Amino acid sequence: MPRWKPDARERLVEAALDLFTEQGYDETTVAQIAERAELTRSTFFRHFSDKRELLSAGQEMLSALLAEGILAAPDAATPLEAVAAGLDRAAGAMTEFNRGLGPRMHAAIEANEELRARNAMKSIGLAAAMAEALQQRGASEAAARVAAELGVLAFGMGYRRWSDPERDGEAGELVTYTREAFAELRAAAAELR
Amino acid sequence: MPRWKPDARERLVEAALDLFTEQGYDETTVAQIAERAELTRSTFFRHFSDKRELLSAGQEMLSALLAEGILAAPDAATPLEAVAAGLDRAAGAMTEFNRGLGPRMHAAIEANEELRARNAMKSIGLAAAMAEALQQRGASEAAARVAAELGVLAFGMGYRRWSDPERDGEAGELVTYTREAFAELRAAAAELR
Repeated sequence: MPRWKPDARERLVEAALDLFTEQGYDETTVAQIAERAELTRSTFFRHFSDKRELLSAGQEMLSALLAEGILAAPDAATPLEAVAAGLDRAAGAMTEFNRGLGPRMHAAIEANEELRARNAMKSIGLAAAMAEALQQRGASEAAARVAAELGVLAFGMGYRRWSDPERDGEAGELVTYTREAFAELRAAAAELR
Repeated sequence: MPRWKPDARERLVEAALDLFTEQGYDETTVAQIAERAELTRSTFFRHFSDKRELLSAGQEMLSALLAEGILAAPDAATPLEAVAAGLDRAAGAMTEFNRGLGPRMHAAIEANEELRARNAMKSIGLAAAMAEALQQRGASEAAARVAAELGVLAFGMGYRRWSDPERDGEAGELVTYTREAFAELRAAAAELR
């Protein structure tokens, strides 16, 4: 029996992250990514239009999941309950593959200024997507922006704790971690004076 | 009498922003910036080590002012009162030059992906500087991060309203706008359910 092998898309993302960490984002070519993943360039282009899209595809998916969850929350849900629904939707879609990626993504980002900048845009894009969905539900701009920032902070904190390679024992589901982080942040926000 | 002329540093920033908008950040050289500002390259290098520093110098100054204001707040100040002190300190240091820069900075950022990414890093850097100062004052990590995000949102909202070229009449002081925005966001945060 062959060992389980991740599908082509996952192998491309892993290969790209390794190369970004080793030699930098700018210096890495599509040909190198395909070669490292033991795939052809044409397989790369069946999954991604270019190197940049390889990173932004995940962000767009995440923004879409958060917004979907917020919009699908019951009409009676408050802004924070709607954000909680968005976090559940997005966290529920993350797999062990995403968990394993966390530390390597972190290392690649730390090592490269362009990736740090792209990661910063990602956070801002997530907050904007959530705030827009909340305003569509009738929240004021100020309420939507504050609730969205709490959501982004919660997703980031939960994801970091879930994917922490130093943690002992089983990781469980990401949704457990994002709920815990969101509860902490809500409590902190409620106590702010 | 000659017309009032901004000093060399301000002229370099204005020239750079105009060129970034017209032809892009990547395509703009230090030589072009100096020429547009009617200054020499060596004058440029007396003020900035490179093109990148020209943008980051403002961010570092702003982060430092926000953190200073937070750390200088009375011991009895709550996290939100400390953030308010940070906003007052930073907003109080902004001049008519900064106000005029707002719309051009916005246009340059909209037109260029690298500048959008740098601007995103700037927001994250401001939040990190404020959160760190709040934690130094004894705030919990969660409280510090939430209060810092409110501060970043307030500074951004206040600055945009203050520098809006469509606004009628006198702009007044930035501090009026950041206080108003911070009050709105605090009220929204307090009402979140």
